[in-house]
Amino acid sequence: MYVAIMGYGVVGSGVAELFMKNHESIVSKSTQSKLELKYILDIRDFKGDPYEDKIVNDVNIIINDPEVGIVVETMGGLHPAYEFVSSCLEAGKSVVSSNKELVAVKGRELLALAEKKNVNFLFEASVGGGIPIIRPISQCLAANEIEEVAGILNGTTNFILTKMISDGMSFEAALKLAQENGYAERNPAADVEGTDACRKICILASLCFGKHVYPDSVHTEGITAITLADVEYARSWGGVIKLIACTKRIDENHIYAMVSPAFVSKHCQLAGVDDVFNAILVRGDAIGDVVFYGRGAGKLPTASAVVADIIDCAKHSARKKVFGWGDAVPDYVVSHLENETALYVRAFSEASDKLLGRCAAVFGKIETLAREGAPDDEIAFVTPRGKEGELREKLASIAGLEPASVIRVTDY
Amino acid sequence: MYVAIMGYGVVGSGVAELFMKNHESIVSKSTQSKLELKYILDIRDFKGDPYEDKIVNDVNIIINDPEVGIVVETMGGLHPAYEFVSSCLEAGKSVVSSNKELVAVKGRELLALAEKKNVNFLFEASVGGGIPIIRPISQCLAANEIEEVAGILNGTTNFILTKMISDGMSFEAALKLAQENGYAERNPAADVEGTDACRKICILASLCFGKHVYPDSVHTEGITAITLADVEYARSWGGVIKLIACTKRIDENHIYAMVSPAFVSKHCQLAGVDDVFNAILVRGDAIGDVVFYGRGAGKLPTASAVVADIIDCAKHSARKKVFGWGDAVPDYVVSHLENETALYVRAFSEASDKLLGRCAAVFGKIETLAREGAPDDEIAFVTPRGKEGELREKLASIAGLEPASVIRVTDY
Repeated sequence: MYVAIMGYGVVGSGVAELFMKNHESIVSKSTQSKLELKYILDIRDFKGDPYEDKIVNDVNIIINDPEVGIVVETMGGLHPAYEFVSSCLEAGKSVVSSNKELVAVKGRELLALAEKKNVNFLFEASVGGGIPIIRPISQCLAANEIEEVAGILNGTTNFILTKMISDGMSFEAALKLAQENGYAERNPAADVEGTDACRKICILASLCFGKHVYPDSVHTEGITAITLADVEYARSWGGVIKLIACTKRIDENHIYAMVSPAFVSKHCQLAGVDDVFNAILVRGDAIGDVVFYGRGAGKLPTASAVVADIIDCAKHSARKKVFGWGDAVPDYVVSHLENETALYVRAFSEASDKLLGRCAAVFGKIETLAREGAPDDEIAFVTPRGKEGELREKLASIAGLEPASVIRVTDY
Repeated sequence: MYVAIMGYGVVGSGVAELFMKNHESIVSKSTQSKLELKYILDIRDFKGDPYEDKIVNDVNIIINDPEVGIVVETMGGLHPAYEFVSSCLEAGKSVVSSNKELVAVKGRELLALAEKKNVNFLFEASVGGGIPIIRPISQCLAANEIEEVAGILNGTTNFILTKMISDGMSFEAALKLAQENGYAERNPAADVEGTDACRKICILASLCFGKHVYPDSVHTEGITAITLADVEYARSWGGVIKLIACTKRIDENHIYAMVSPAFVSKHCQLAGVDDVFNAILVRGDAIGDVVFYGRGAGKLPTASAVVADIIDCAKHSARKKVFGWGDAVPDYVVSHLENETALYVRAFSEASDKLLGRCAAVFGKIETLAREGAPDDEIAFVTPRGKEGELREKLASIAGLEPASVIRVTDY
């Protein structure tokens, strides 16, 4: 059986490298007598590359070669990845993708096409990089009804927040350092605005709860508004600020899904996940909480997940794996304002004691927070838990309160 | 297809409960039109139990019923579990086991028998309870050469150590509390002496490195000698004491494997694993470090892993899964004295300054540790890293040094 790779960037070249490095053991685990890399598709040439002879510039060479049974898509972006992957599936080839945008936006459609053609469409690398998560959820936790998933799914923002928390760096300085280290793009919007984490939680929500969830249905906030003052108040509360992507089952036909910064207690396993590492907490009705931790990005970690999928496709070449989810349904993702949470609030007021008194009166009870070096007119507190919409209405009703920060507080 | 459960204790009854609770979704994932529980084998009767009508007392009823395709073994112990499982496999039935002793001692033999009979022998629940670990290692990390595995694999000892670390309880008091909470048996030897963790690391070593590892080939120390003084010194060093089961690849034909208390840096993900929780760190050549965390024991978490294996057996009823390892080979597990480590040493001496000076001279350099309330004649230090045998020879050569504690120091 032959394999082709579409897209010879960081991940694609990592796949080729790892596939060759551990080739003997990979072939043996694939149960195929032969599993060879035949083509690498890229619009560029790669003079002097060890796999120069495998480079092709026309996708039709791959699509029309009946010897190619498995195609890896590591191009990223929606187009032309979507068209190429569709054509490969149509041609009866299994496809392995690391492309979270493709899976989040076109996953249901491509899974249906794969099913029709009796081939596999696998994408372990699209969430959590090398961390095993798609397969553990779909197989190892198959006896559970999944209740909730919460994850640190974006390494760039986690690196920035770690630098703010541990080294007291400002957001801007930490972002610059992330860019210098190659962890953040020159245009960091997809990371710092939460878009990347949103795509990943869409994939997990689709997988866990059985219906496709599109990114535009998920309330998404990034970390650009987080200040060092907020970081300090989170510490005094007993935790850290993390960019949390989460999804929760309400009933057969409704879920929550959201991406936003959140206070996480230091006793939660997610709180200790630092730097570019990712972690995903899955709560099942039998297993309770399990956490999967590791490198969520990077050349070889991501390739590790892609190559595991290649092996799985090869093992299942004679039959389709049972895997996937159903069509999206309207009003499936309920507004985050219905979700139960607590809110951390920071504000300024010249009559801060009186303002805190009014806040306490409105909420019944608040947990006031302090930090060293706070300006005299700064107040900060955490509300009791309640429906987010109701909490926000109460906040809006408090005369003189104009919050500088409002951040959700988890109960993990 | 029909399922039978052998052993209706805590885990067995959890399997029946979970199998019924999520039955519809379990059947759907199994790809079988029907998947029903037919028998529960136990020597006891269960008057009034919801599954009283399924209880049988003779294993031959199960072995001789051609409708039973999958048998669950949750009896524990080596005999008669071994004989019953062998007979079921011989009769062409797939077997799912949660029995770590059985897998650690008879795993290779039973896997070979399953292969011969073209059925499956799966045991996800035998390590880490409900935590997905066997399947992630064998499938999700299949593209990696696994280099090392280190885990907190025994919840009882982790609970005891957590109480010593967080609440300053003595070993004896913490053990008593564990017994009162039902976390420790009246005879706690298998837990506190490390036997249970040893069986589990044997299974992981066999799976990761391809050759069967027997418990009697693995150097095993428990936690009975750990004192609160050691706990305090670990804290001042910057970490905690955990019972670590580990295995490391040396080359094609040699590995290390060991169970012992160890200093773990607070920056390692394993350090934050408290109470009865388990966690397993796996280091692969592509993925780097991944950590799997969750409940390592308990009725429903363990049942979660067993039922996932039932589903997998049902999905693979037509063909054997590719899974297992080879025969044991002589001298495969190298002495722990060859392993590289650092050692924490605590001792008493009336001339403690002079003794520390001699220690420093012998090791070139030592890291001395202090704790509040230490007796005047107590010393404690950490050696540089080196082969354990050589470090111990150096310790033995130091005049006047009679260590009260020697504990390994990890570099995770």
